[in-house]
Amino acid sequence: MKPAMKKIYLFSEGNAYMKDLLGSKGANLAEMVRAGLPVPPGFTITTDVCNEYLSNGGRFPTDLMPDILNALKTVETAMNRQFGDVDNPLLVSVRSGAKISMPGMMETVLNLGLNDQTLQGLIRQSGDERFAYDTYRRFIQMFGSVVLEINKEYFEDILDYKKQHLRVQNDADLTVNALKEIVLAFKEIVQDKTGAPFPQDPMTQLQQAIEAVFRSWHIPRAVAYRNYMKIEHDLGTAVNIQAMVFGNMGEDSATGVAFTRNPATGEKELYGEYLLNAQGEDVVAGIRTPQKISDMAREMPALYEEFSEIAYRLEHHYMDVQDMEFTVEKGRLFMLQTRSGKRTIQAAVKVAVDFVNEGIITPEEAMLRIDANQLPQLLLPAFSQSAMAQARKSNHLLATGLNASPGAATGEIVFNPDEAETLAEQGRNVILVRTETCPDDVHGMIAAQGILTTRGGNTSHAAVVARGMGKPCITGCESCRIDPKAETLSIGDKILQKGELISLDGATGEVFEGAIPTEIPKLGPELEILLNWADETRVLGVRANADTPADARKALEMGAKGIGLCRTEHMFMAQDRLPVVQDMILADSLEARKKALTRLMPMQLEDFKGIFRAMAGHPVTIRLLDPPLHEFLPNREELRIALEQQIKADPYEENVKAQAAILKKVGELHEVNPMMGFRGCRLGLVYPEIYAMQVRAIFEAACDLVSERINVQPEIMIPLVGHVSELKALREQLEAVANEVMNRRDIWFHYLFGTMIEVPRAALTADEIAQYAEFFSFGTNDLTQLTLGYSRDDAEGRFLVKYLEKGILKENPFEVLDVAGVGQLIEIAREKGRIMRPHLKLGICGEHGGESRSVQFSHQVGLDYVSCSPFRVPVARLAAAQAAISGRDRLEALHSAKTVLLTEP
Amino acid sequence: MKPAMKKIYLFSEGNAYMKDLLGSKGANLAEMVRAGLPVPPGFTITTDVCNEYLSNGGRFPTDLMPDILNALKTVETAMNRQFGDVDNPLLVSVRSGAKISMPGMMETVLNLGLNDQTLQGLIRQSGDERFAYDTYRRFIQMFGSVVLEINKEYFEDILDYKKQHLRVQNDADLTVNALKEIVLAFKEIVQDKTGAPFPQDPMTQLQQAIEAVFRSWHIPRAVAYRNYMKIEHDLGTAVNIQAMVFGNMGEDSATGVAFTRNPATGEKELYGEYLLNAQGEDVVAGIRTPQKISDMAREMPALYEEFSEIAYRLEHHYMDVQDMEFTVEKGRLFMLQTRSGKRTIQAAVKVAVDFVNEGIITPEEAMLRIDANQLPQLLLPAFSQSAMAQARKSNHLLATGLNASPGAATGEIVFNPDEAETLAEQGRNVILVRTETCPDDVHGMIAAQGILTTRGGNTSHAAVVARGMGKPCITGCESCRIDPKAETLSIGDKILQKGELISLDGATGEVFEGAIPTEIPKLGPELEILLNWADETRVLGVRANADTPADARKALEMGAKGIGLCRTEHMFMAQDRLPVVQDMILADSLEARKKALTRLMPMQLEDFKGIFRAMAGHPVTIRLLDPPLHEFLPNREELRIALEQQIKADPYEENVKAQAAILKKVGELHEVNPMMGFRGCRLGLVYPEIYAMQVRAIFEAACDLVSERINVQPEIMIPLVGHVSELKALREQLEAVANEVMNRRDIWFHYLFGTMIEVPRAALTADEIAQYAEFFSFGTNDLTQLTLGYSRDDAEGRFLVKYLEKGILKENPFEVLDVAGVGQLIEIAREKGRIMRPHLKLGICGEHGGESRSVQFSHQVGLDYVSCSPFRVPVARLAAAQAAISGRDRLEALHSAKTVLLTEP
Repeated sequence: MKPAMKKIYLFSEGNAYMKDLLGSKGANLAEMVRAGLPVPPGFTITTDVCNEYLSNGGRFPTDLMPDILNALKTVETAMNRQFGDVDNPLLVSVRSGAKISMPGMMETVLNLGLNDQTLQGLIRQSGDERFAYDTYRRFIQMFGSVVLEINKEYFEDILDYKKQHLRVQNDADLTVNALKEIVLAFKEIVQDKTGAPFPQDPMTQLQQAIEAVFRSWHIPRAVAYRNYMKIEHDLGTAVNIQAMVFGNMGEDSATGVAFTRNPATGEKELYGEYLLNAQGEDVVAGIRTPQKISDMAREMPALYEEFSEIAYRLEHHYMDVQDMEFTVEKGRLFMLQTRSGKRTIQAAVKVAVDFVNEGIITPEEAMLRIDANQLPQLLLPAFSQSAMAQARKSNHLLATGLNASPGAATGEIVFNPDEAETLAEQGRNVILVRTETCPDDVHGMIAAQGILTTRGGNTSHAAVVARGMGKPCITGCESCRIDPKAETLSIGDKILQKGELISLDGATGEVFEGAIPTEIPKLGPELEILLNWADETRVLGVRANADTPADARKALEMGAKGIGLCRTEHMFMAQDRLPVVQDMILADSLEARKKALTRLMPMQLEDFKGIFRAMAGHPVTIRLLDPPLHEFLPNREELRIALEQQIKADPYEENVKAQAAILKKVGELHEVNPMMGFRGCRLGLVYPEIYAMQVRAIFEAACDLVSERINVQPEIMIPLVGHVSELKALREQLEAVANEVMNRRDIWFHYLFGTMIEVPRAALTADEIAQYAEFFSFGTNDLTQLTLGYSRDDAEGRFLVKYLEKGILKENPFEVLDVAGVGQLIEIAREKGRIMRPHLKLGICGEHGGESRSVQFSHQVGLDYVSCSPFRVPVARLAAAQAAISGRDRLEALHSAKTVLLTEP
Repeated sequence: MKPAMKKIYLFSEGNAYMKDLLGSKGANLAEMVRAGLPVPPGFTITTDVCNEYLSNGGRFPTDLMPDILNALKTVETAMNRQFGDVDNPLLVSVRSGAKISMPGMMETVLNLGLNDQTLQGLIRQSGDERFAYDTYRRFIQMFGSVVLEINKEYFEDILDYKKQHLRVQNDADLTVNALKEIVLAFKEIVQDKTGAPFPQDPMTQLQQAIEAVFRSWHIPRAVAYRNYMKIEHDLGTAVNIQAMVFGNMGEDSATGVAFTRNPATGEKELYGEYLLNAQGEDVVAGIRTPQKISDMAREMPALYEEFSEIAYRLEHHYMDVQDMEFTVEKGRLFMLQTRSGKRTIQAAVKVAVDFVNEGIITPEEAMLRIDANQLPQLLLPAFSQSAMAQARKSNHLLATGLNASPGAATGEIVFNPDEAETLAEQGRNVILVRTETCPDDVHGMIAAQGILTTRGGNTSHAAVVARGMGKPCITGCESCRIDPKAETLSIGDKILQKGELISLDGATGEVFEGAIPTEIPKLGPELEILLNWADETRVLGVRANADTPADARKALEMGAKGIGLCRTEHMFMAQDRLPVVQDMILADSLEARKKALTRLMPMQLEDFKGIFRAMAGHPVTIRLLDPPLHEFLPNREELRIALEQQIKADPYEENVKAQAAILKKVGELHEVNPMMGFRGCRLGLVYPEIYAMQVRAIFEAACDLVSERINVQPEIMIPLVGHVSELKALREQLEAVANEVMNRRDIWFHYLFGTMIEVPRAALTADEIAQYAEFFSFGTNDLTQLTLGYSRDDAEGRFLVKYLEKGILKENPFEVLDVAGVGQLIEIAREKGRIMRPHLKLGICGEHGGESRSVQFSHQVGLDYVSCSPFRVPVARLAAAQAAISGRDRLEALHSAKTVLLTEP
């Protein structure tokens, strides 16, 4: 038997470090109690209890109830009320709270402890019959849907019916009598749907609510959210039981949420909303559009001051932006929650840099705080300023809402989250348009390019979730009206149908008709500062993958110090060259092939000159032709159909013979598994004239530039080498070409000859291969395919999805480097390669080169550089710095440094 | 400068160990001289000189000629003749001779040293003008074609014209005057074709002939032969220069070749042929059909006795079958060559076992002498005895020739080697039918199923080469006549056209019309003895890959001790099951899929029962479903065309809808790289019900047999595992099924759960995987594909051919295990796997499990067993014994033990 573990912690027993056990909410409530802030008393049931409950198939631990009663006693004493007492009842909230905050994904029950008897006590306590009945109907409604799993529409329908019947707009306008009738009706629904009366025993209510919270760990929207946010599925949730305080006890009561800084932009301002005379969920759910927190300074000046001071204390205490919930009950302020505020990456960067300037954290801490993988969001296309100005002039600006989450999105209007998902799977861009969103809509939000809601504020569900996802979102766009039946969106006279295009600018809150052209933004000033700190800190080099002079210039702008992968096939694909490349492939003799190559050569030469010129003074790694030749020819099936039709139309047409020849060649080149077929250096060895032409073009180009006194550093890279003999033979052939050019032109410069390591055998025999390679560049895309035996084309979107869903794999290995397998091969190759050639240059040029954890791995195993697409260069720069900061420690140390905050009061 | 190496060795200076330097022929001539046998004097130019010559682009070493003159002096002294002397000329032969004998592949020049002047000396020496002119015309003819590269048909045409003109049949019937005219005509051809007179200077002749022999290392037929026999291309040839002796000096002269044992069957008998009054090439070339060597006992009894004794001495000296050439010049016997006799694998096995019985070698030596990889030839289909009897009765026996090389072959008649090659490439079986074969025909012989010649004996070119290749061959079938123009083969009245089917029985020499049905032979008695020695010697286990009860029985017969790979998909492919399997694949719900599986289950159950019954007492490793599902569905393109046609014909036909559904599914299942796609355990994890059904069938079957008191040892094998989570999840699911069955039936037996290691990542993380695997079976086919990045379907027959031709790879890695790459992964997996689980059972079940060098590797790295197809089980048994004999030494030691023979006289 395991020793009995402590299952329940009073808030006064915990602290901010205990998130694993108490969840984020519970740990922070405890921390606030430690800091002496006004928090209603309560206690937390640990995540261990949840996990035990779930793994036991939902058996409530027999020894839990006595502990709960004990803890409850402390709360009763503090509040001077008794749980279930008819005269002076204590009501409690039962809330979920996982280690990593999952806002709104799991369940909450408020006002628990009410029944027909304690209701009378509440009336006496509050002296407000209407409040008490409203609270009771809320409780039945919430308990009914969350715990008893009755479809919530039954309750809403009754509420709507009553309001219509009484011709009132808001719940707040319902009379006591109406509420009494509603309570009766709600209880009937419960009887009707569950076959039993609404549970009157408060202890039964409490146990059932706790179990419902436990179970909510596994509800689909929570699972989907964890998948999306890459949160592990075995953490479980804690349960927080806390004395209720009421923001709906009249006009001297209120409830609100606020951030210590603007979570969209990072501006230093108290940012949030509140509602007078309301309960907390009214704000989050966006049922009424709330007031800005700054209005509170006018309406409740003393309370605003008290709250502002608490906010300042919390931010300095946690050294991070805080997202707080509070309630004012009859003029008294209570803090209900504080947590690290979710923010856009834009805000994260600004806050981190500002915190350094404000002396709160060091630059190293600032760098560690940023999730490097999110930086590319800052480089997502934004609407062109001139196009927006034009759209405003042309009357295409439909409406302006709240700028809840920045970014530019264009897509078809869709009103239904399921439909959004379906269309997105078909590759269509959609904008999800809703009155408000709720946790059940999350899959549609994931699928959409952007989200537009007509109600709700900047802390509404839509806003919070969209910012977490880095997705453009406009909320509270009240001039828009949705007709759900007609599936239209109307603004003034304009009526837009489902499927029509709109554009959202999440930064300005503007909604445009039609599509607005986009452009790539520059790095912002705070990001420049952060990345400069990173460059001063990191030891790992950062290059970019770039195939054209324009790419090369973009790479430099993003801070790359060289090109790690220039794919020459992209030059072959250009529209003016493809016919020549096809001639080359169709050539039936060496002579004919050479002739086509002679035509290609000057084109490649110009490309190389442009790239060398842009990258003057930096190394440029050029990979010789890699893909299978059939990639340059049309699709076989299409070709066959076209040819059949042409023959039917006119068999004597001139083109028929040429087409037939192409079809024949395509057939000859057809491969069962082209990824492992006739490509890479296999092509180069069977058709040596192709690589010879490419090397000739590289060296002629380099000579041209050297004679202009431009520094060139070419690195010739052979793809798909698996056996030393391949590299040896090619090196001999190609160095002869290089020497011939340099000799003839009498221009000499330093260059490197090396290979990609993308075949497992190459890594395993790296000692042999290093004899003929001055550098290795790990092609981690193909190396991952072969090491894992996954065809990327076939795995992603198919069985890999299932693997991630079932938790067989924690990560997509094409996104995050598989350290145990592929990483092991990289380590073997480094080890063996550097034994043979101690100064062997090592880099990564797969997509992993721009993914933060893979970059950290690259640093740890001692590679010289990573290379990635220009837009991921900032990721690599920052991640390399983070790796250098965490030094020789394992990645875990780094990750925990980001999640555990300094909390001494 | 390198120290000057000895470039030339007199025969008296060499010995049999010096094959690297002197070639096989040179080393053995030296050895015979050492042993005191009658050998015409001579010397050998080393292989180093040849390699120097070839790598210098054909520059004759400047310092070679003086050494040649020196060596020549010794020969002149011994023979008491002078090279180039008008009165008493020495004639020499110039012969190639590589380290590994390549019979007839390279060039030879005889009678060198003759010119218009020395001709007169030869007339005086021999006292035979006709002999001298015949020798001169032979010399011009041979030198002209071999050295001066004049098409030999020019010479043959003149010879034929003369014979027709004089109405004689044989060269021997040409008169002196005719020969004089022929010599004149030959010299004119030389003048005409080379623009220069026939070289009269003997030293010039000698240098040119030596260079021609050097060059002949690279002629196409020699390259093709080396590729076929897997002889390295950088060995070079030695050149042997030897005093001529003449078998054509009258009826007391003769020339012949003989083996010490029958090279086709291994029978202990002097086996060979000779021709009176002829030169050696007349026998080999099959120009005249020679007499059997046994006739010599009657015609030349003393010489026969002398020769027999020499043959006995040589066989005991070399402890191996000898293939000898001799010449009798005017009653005096000269040995011109001895070498290890090429023999069929059948003869090799009999000789090795006989040698042990005769006390010449030990059983260990006998085992080392056999190339295990050739054993499957003994199990090639032979004609069914009853079918042959029937064919004889039905008058389908066309003719009987010499049984030159055993085996059964059926194919289309082809007269031209090029055509044979072309047709064979199209997948057609051909029989090459020739009057005689010559080295230029080798590519056609490689392509053919069997060879039939109408002339030539058992030591003719066709016979020697065919035996070397293990290919059925009938020679000297003189009742057949070939009409090359009409392309017909006639026997008596019967005229067979090109393309008609004939069957050859190489063991009996019978030629049949049409195709004769074949059957699989049993292991012969000597092979049984040899393999029993192997079983007593080896430590490595040998199992077979078998998918059906019949396969399992065959496997036992071949000596397998268990099944290492039972592929359950082969059960799915059976004609009666495929529709059910297709239903299962097309099922659009879990229910429908389960329903189809329920129908499959009893069929699989019966298969497993049959296999367990056949393998009672032995382990049976069953691999759960592996291939991608589309392999069970029709081809997409064919399906599309068929459907289009059906729709055109009758769009309302019932089948259309079903076909369209299949087409849709085929489209969904289509993969870019199916080898790396949705297959193996990926299938098993996404559709758990498939593996569950298979495991249920296995355990129900096993329970059935256990209740019959039959010992079953199932081993459940999961394919394509790359990550421990895959195996963990499946093990949990499937052990639950296994336990459910055993529990329900209350029958318990021991079984193992394990995995194939065929994904590189699995090998690299073997420590993790071994936590859930009780055995690993290396699927070296797929492991080779992924480690090298070669799609076998695309590589073999395409770029792999080029790689082998260019020497980038020495071996096809799908035939011989790639030790450096794939082998390294196996070693890593063994190391890591056994750290986690010391008694982890390890085996190989790829095709490499039946290849001798790969089996030796398996022994060396400490695997427990290999598993291969039943017909390769003898290979594995013998190779495992060879590995055990060679102990911990490297493979090289073993190989050299096979090539260096004991030679102390």
